[in-house]
Amino acid sequence: MPPDRLRRALNPASAVVVGSKKADGYMWLRNYSTFTGSLASVQIDESEIAGIAALGITNYRSLLDVPGDIDYVMLAVPRPVAPRVLADCAKKGVGAVALFTSGFAETGEDEGIRLEEELLRIAREGDVALIGPNCMGVYNRKLGIRQSAEQAAGEAGEVGFISQSGTHAINFGLVGEQHGVRVSTSVSIGNAIVVDVPDYLDYLADDADTRVIAMYIEGVKDGRRFVRSLRRATSMKPVVVWKGGVTTAGARATASHTGSLATSPAIFSAILRQAGAIAADSLEDTIDVVKALLYAKPATGGRMGLMAMTGGQSVVITDAFVGAGLQVPRLSAGSYEQLRSFFNIIGGSYQNPLDMGGTIGFGGSAATLEKLFAILDADPNIDGVAMEMASGFLARRWQADPSALDGLLDALVGHQQRSAKPFVTILQPQHVEDIVAQARRRMQDRGLAVFASFDRAARALARAIAYWRFRAGDE
Amino acid sequence: MPPDRLRRALNPASAVVVGSKKADGYMWLRNYSTFTGSLASVQIDESEIAGIAALGITNYRSLLDVPGDIDYVMLAVPRPVAPRVLADCAKKGVGAVALFTSGFAETGEDEGIRLEEELLRIAREGDVALIGPNCMGVYNRKLGIRQSAEQAAGEAGEVGFISQSGTHAINFGLVGEQHGVRVSTSVSIGNAIVVDVPDYLDYLADDADTRVIAMYIEGVKDGRRFVRSLRRATSMKPVVVWKGGVTTAGARATASHTGSLATSPAIFSAILRQAGAIAADSLEDTIDVVKALLYAKPATGGRMGLMAMTGGQSVVITDAFVGAGLQVPRLSAGSYEQLRSFFNIIGGSYQNPLDMGGTIGFGGSAATLEKLFAILDADPNIDGVAMEMASGFLARRWQADPSALDGLLDALVGHQQRSAKPFVTILQPQHVEDIVAQARRRMQDRGLAVFASFDRAARALARAIAYWRFRAGDE
Repeated sequence: MPPDRLRRALNPASAVVVGSKKADGYMWLRNYSTFTGSLASVQIDESEIAGIAALGITNYRSLLDVPGDIDYVMLAVPRPVAPRVLADCAKKGVGAVALFTSGFAETGEDEGIRLEEELLRIAREGDVALIGPNCMGVYNRKLGIRQSAEQAAGEAGEVGFISQSGTHAINFGLVGEQHGVRVSTSVSIGNAIVVDVPDYLDYLADDADTRVIAMYIEGVKDGRRFVRSLRRATSMKPVVVWKGGVTTAGARATASHTGSLATSPAIFSAILRQAGAIAADSLEDTIDVVKALLYAKPATGGRMGLMAMTGGQSVVITDAFVGAGLQVPRLSAGSYEQLRSFFNIIGGSYQNPLDMGGTIGFGGSAATLEKLFAILDADPNIDGVAMEMASGFLARRWQADPSALDGLLDALVGHQQRSAKPFVTILQPQHVEDIVAQARRRMQDRGLAVFASFDRAARALARAIAYWRFRAGDE
Repeated sequence: MPPDRLRRALNPASAVVVGSKKADGYMWLRNYSTFTGSLASVQIDESEIAGIAALGITNYRSLLDVPGDIDYVMLAVPRPVAPRVLADCAKKGVGAVALFTSGFAETGEDEGIRLEEELLRIAREGDVALIGPNCMGVYNRKLGIRQSAEQAAGEAGEVGFISQSGTHAINFGLVGEQHGVRVSTSVSIGNAIVVDVPDYLDYLADDADTRVIAMYIEGVKDGRRFVRSLRRATSMKPVVVWKGGVTTAGARATASHTGSLATSPAIFSAILRQAGAIAADSLEDTIDVVKALLYAKPATGGRMGLMAMTGGQSVVITDAFVGAGLQVPRLSAGSYEQLRSFFNIIGGSYQNPLDMGGTIGFGGSAATLEKLFAILDADPNIDGVAMEMASGFLARRWQADPSALDGLLDALVGHQQRSAKPFVTILQPQHVEDIVAQARRRMQDRGLAVFASFDRAARALARAIAYWRFRAGDE
């Protein structure tokens, strides 16, 4: 797939939905209601046309009737009709076709397999960039072309996503958005019979908006080509790979889902490691790692300075970071000398972890917090800092005074901006869900990396550090 | 510690707070504002007495002046004063004293160690049941005696909690409450110099309200006694143990926190396994396991029937359950014969996992869902069922019609009640946080086990099954 070809497909100025219908609430036209380019519909069913017109969309009886160039076609027609409309797309010379329709080789049935072969033949002969079949197509946040009407549109995001599952593509957009992880371009690739993972990977590696690439894949057809594209991409930006079907029963499920063949999990892990890619094992895990890569500064050392509000949390934050493979060393003599002069050790401790609730006054004295940040930032034994934000204390201050957190956040953001060391925060427990969600958004909007648990923060940061070490040539 | 003695201490009819003060917002008197028994205050500082009176609490100048018996004293006085007031408690013959004050042996300083030895001497000589020091005391939900004013009071809960951390005790109550895990009796035990883990464990094992016991511990003083109490408890009800300080640096943190000595993680794990206790590694993980124990029916087999809405989710739900050590077998021939007659395999599959979105109509047709439940319930290859609840679909139905979920929940609850097999649900993704929180509460209130991710559900259920297998004598 020539790069320019894919660039046109993933950045369309014109799009057409074929087969939009009332039964699914005109889903695709609604998904593209935020599209910044020109949008048209093709539908031959008379009973659907009034509904399409009511959405303000011009309908044509045939793709060949649509005036001008078409960069992107979303095809949502019944399975037996798909090959014929694909042939029209070839004739029209469209930029790309995303085929929503499913029921092809992934069913394992003769009819599905035969139809998929026919699609492949038409696409090859007609030189059509076919995305799918059995897919949700493209989500380009800046252009407002979406996989679901719940996804956000507006400024360009920073994360590219390649997904062999439409659900995971949609959810990466939705959940990511809540966590400050915004999509540049996401593609739901379905059975990927024409345009495949390496094509998308090459594109996202070269895409200027994309700072981090993530993917959900169930199988790889051409292992050699995949590794080549993966290595090229990881030499340019971080690539996070969430592999589905890593168990035998899971692999059976991938066969019915996208017709993917099983790959040995051990072999796949080795491939990722050698290529410098980052392994993830769930949607949340993928988003966590991406968050660490986007928001925490790059570092190659893993010696953490830990800040917790109470003794119990100082123990478990330490277990979490050490458990993830990072270190929690003793601080330098100089740091201890400074801490000794003001740190409250009645119900507290500054050995690292810092059990600092009694010292910063629980609610969080910004001035004292700044002193602690400065000490850890200057300490030669420390490569990065993780801090507990106790949501109970936050909630109490917030309820008393909605602006009370600004001073505290100023201190955190000041440290994040001044320090060259990665800084992550953990906002928990999750018992005041509305407060936690609001606080997380406020913190994210100011550029802070906010995690839901010590474990999740630790595991995410450890893998980000491993990637930066790979980039530095250390392993 | 004689059992009757502890029963009185943990089920007080009268309580006194010594040292309540404005600086902390009269924290302890407020924590006990829901207390169903009689509450009094002891404070000699004239400047605090008006504030205490304003709360409607009678203040005395000395504990010895308080009329009648005192079952429970919360002592929150400056460190040097603690021994003298403890001696008053001994003279008065109180049921128990919880000592909030910290700054004893856990500081590692001479003065703290000396004072702790003095406390121990007074408690021993005066036969005082001392809880702590350095603790948040008792949370008895039914009696309204709490560790934090955020904790709920009312009906008795079902879960006992023993915690060497006040923070984790409070948070177990707060987060647990959001997840349908309500506390019967929780004790923050602090340095536990007199009443220790085995005493509390024996009490909770015998307590009729307590169906499940959980604990956060950092170290054990008398290993032999701990194991004896643990074995006794696990033979009566499930015991979940979250051990803090499992890493070297974490153990250093426990030393400053509660003065606990390090125990080798490998040895500790072996002890738990042999005693049939369940290991957990964080607050969320502890709550997840307890939830599975409370809400899912007991089973000794781990062959799961999995129900997901889409192909991508059917792959990752399978990876999660197999990854946690459970099995996802093929169904019986009889089940396949029934499924073949109505299951939609265009974009779906019924091999197990069931990729059923297209069959139940995404939003969830209760009637079709009931057919699927009946098939899995009757299938001899299946020991338990896990079902994805897709929050996006729920949110859409909910917004359209707030009562729309009742039919769907009726089907789930009907299955849960009819079937002898454990049933767990996974409500995700978490992008519509308010909807997810509301839906989770509605589901929990109807007795369903609801988890936040496939991994968390799988890991929790796998450990619950391992416990029931232990109880059945299978391992």
